[in-house]
Amino acid sequence: MTATLPGIADIHHAATRLSGLIVETPLIESQELNKRFGGRILFKPETLQRTGSFKFRGAYNKLSSLTEEERSRGVVAFSSGNHAQGVAASAAMFGVKAIIAMPADAPAMKIANVRKMGAEVVHFDRVREDRMTVVRPYVEQGMVLVPPYDDPSIIAGQGTIGLELVRQAKALGASLDAVVIPCGGGGLSSGISIAVKDASPGTAVWGVEPEHFDDTRRSLAKGARVTNEPGHQSICDALLVAEPGAITFEINRKNLSGVVAVSDQATRQAMRDAMANLKLVVEPGGSVALAALSSGEIELAGKCVAVVLSGGNVDFGTYAEIMAAA
Amino acid sequence: MTATLPGIADIHHAATRLSGLIVETPLIESQELNKRFGGRILFKPETLQRTGSFKFRGAYNKLSSLTEEERSRGVVAFSSGNHAQGVAASAAMFGVKAIIAMPADAPAMKIANVRKMGAEVVHFDRVREDRMTVVRPYVEQGMVLVPPYDDPSIIAGQGTIGLELVRQAKALGASLDAVVIPCGGGGLSSGISIAVKDASPGTAVWGVEPEHFDDTRRSLAKGARVTNEPGHQSICDALLVAEPGAITFEINRKNLSGVVAVSDQATRQAMRDAMANLKLVVEPGGSVALAALSSGEIELAGKCVAVVLSGGNVDFGTYAEIMAAA
Repeated sequence: MTATLPGIADIHHAATRLSGLIVETPLIESQELNKRFGGRILFKPETLQRTGSFKFRGAYNKLSSLTEEERSRGVVAFSSGNHAQGVAASAAMFGVKAIIAMPADAPAMKIANVRKMGAEVVHFDRVREDRMTVVRPYVEQGMVLVPPYDDPSIIAGQGTIGLELVRQAKALGASLDAVVIPCGGGGLSSGISIAVKDASPGTAVWGVEPEHFDDTRRSLAKGARVTNEPGHQSICDALLVAEPGAITFEINRKNLSGVVAVSDQATRQAMRDAMANLKLVVEPGGSVALAALSSGEIELAGKCVAVVLSGGNVDFGTYAEIMAAA
Repeated sequence: MTATLPGIADIHHAATRLSGLIVETPLIESQELNKRFGGRILFKPETLQRTGSFKFRGAYNKLSSLTEEERSRGVVAFSSGNHAQGVAASAAMFGVKAIIAMPADAPAMKIANVRKMGAEVVHFDRVREDRMTVVRPYVEQGMVLVPPYDDPSIIAGQGTIGLELVRQAKALGASLDAVVIPCGGGGLSSGISIAVKDASPGTAVWGVEPEHFDDTRRSLAKGARVTNEPGHQSICDALLVAEPGAITFEINRKNLSGVVAVSDQATRQAMRDAMANLKLVVEPGGSVALAALSSGEIELAGKCVAVVLSGGNVDFGTYAEIMAAA
């Protein structure tokens, strides 16, 4: 297993490939939120990334790592929407065909964006159908599967955020006590953790999951991967996985200080906080790390803490409903 | 009159004073909007600026230009909210008293933010009361008036955005064909125009006003300052002035290629476009330059155009209502 784990060299390689193609998202700070939390909170808005989430980083890095012959066969992916957009945009840039399996209940904006970028969308039932079964026919035809998180190239691509975080915090004269990261399959947190721990071993790295989808939290507690109990719902469409990835869990178990689980109510409040204090549109799954700051589980007083806002792809109707509830 | 006009040296001086205190707001680009407009559109989101709008730049520069004795007497300002927040934040940083006269119908978020920063708010009736009459007693007590736009130090502070725009566009390898800027009293457009024209005389500078509040547009046409017809309303609370400033108009008449007037409906659509494509919360008055891109009055095809998003201070209810209408 160890042989397949990505390392810091892979992340530096990914950063070179992505240079000039990604947005180096800035660090954003709110005096109001600093006051509320009693520390210095530096937000990394991947909402401003190409395709509206961090997923472009990993997807493009993965496509770069394929041979020309592999790419020419086209790529296939399954995703609730952010990875889908990352793959669709990357495939368009390489001029190759992309087929994306998306849950029928994915946000309409995400589905529309994937189609706009020229990818073909096939729908599946998120609860009843196995996503691997949906994409298998395409893989058997020769198309290359671009996994959403459990892949060294994907993890290395997401890890470039960690390189930026460390460099940008340093430029502000800040030293990061902790980094807080939304966690679905664990690609984002594992990738960032490698880069952050390499540059600053003393920085704590935290994951954040939605309540009832805290598979990584419970897996860390057990020391082995466990699955989520079926039958639950969450507004965090981007973070609803069944269990941690094999590779991502190997990295996260080594690097994470812990995982916080947050309620949908806390996530809605975080979306409103981001709107009012940061002027940023953040989707539910992208807001959980901000929501976790109010949990009391992460020490903030007098600390400097980076918070990753991982995506901003949310429908008008959903967003309006959450804003109106303030 | 010419003696009081700010110049490029004043803007460089302001940039030095503001260095490390302001956010160097990034340039943000949307593939989707580039495709729609057929050019390269670079957005400058002053929504991410300290206090949620560009106004902090001018207010802090003005307070810096006062003597210690003057500042010790406290400052007073009138504003619908963004200048108010800029002055309140600057006064708090200098540790001096601030009294702000705000229209009773200003957005609740703006009023609340001013109070949070420690300033005292006095209300006036935007339609019936003269704002100068409201602040005069404080000025007679010795407090220093910080005007919202018609002041060389205020204009120079706002002009620092122009320095950043030119430098940031250059770093992207882009050469600006035009810059499009929201226009109320004209402080923002006049300040930016000085910096842009200094670095790049061939770049067109456009102002944008709300329909029925197009005093600068009509003043340019007439060659002299004219006032707006009373009795009209607009959702652009930040841009509702009676007439152009004397100093700002002198600069704008020299530097502006023209002014576009946009309807509230176009502004609402621009706010939705900013949400969906840029993931940015932009207030009505802050969105008019984006709205103007759809007017057909500014050449976009094959051009590189910078658009200033000047502020993001909007109440939850107003924002939700506009998002829900999509």
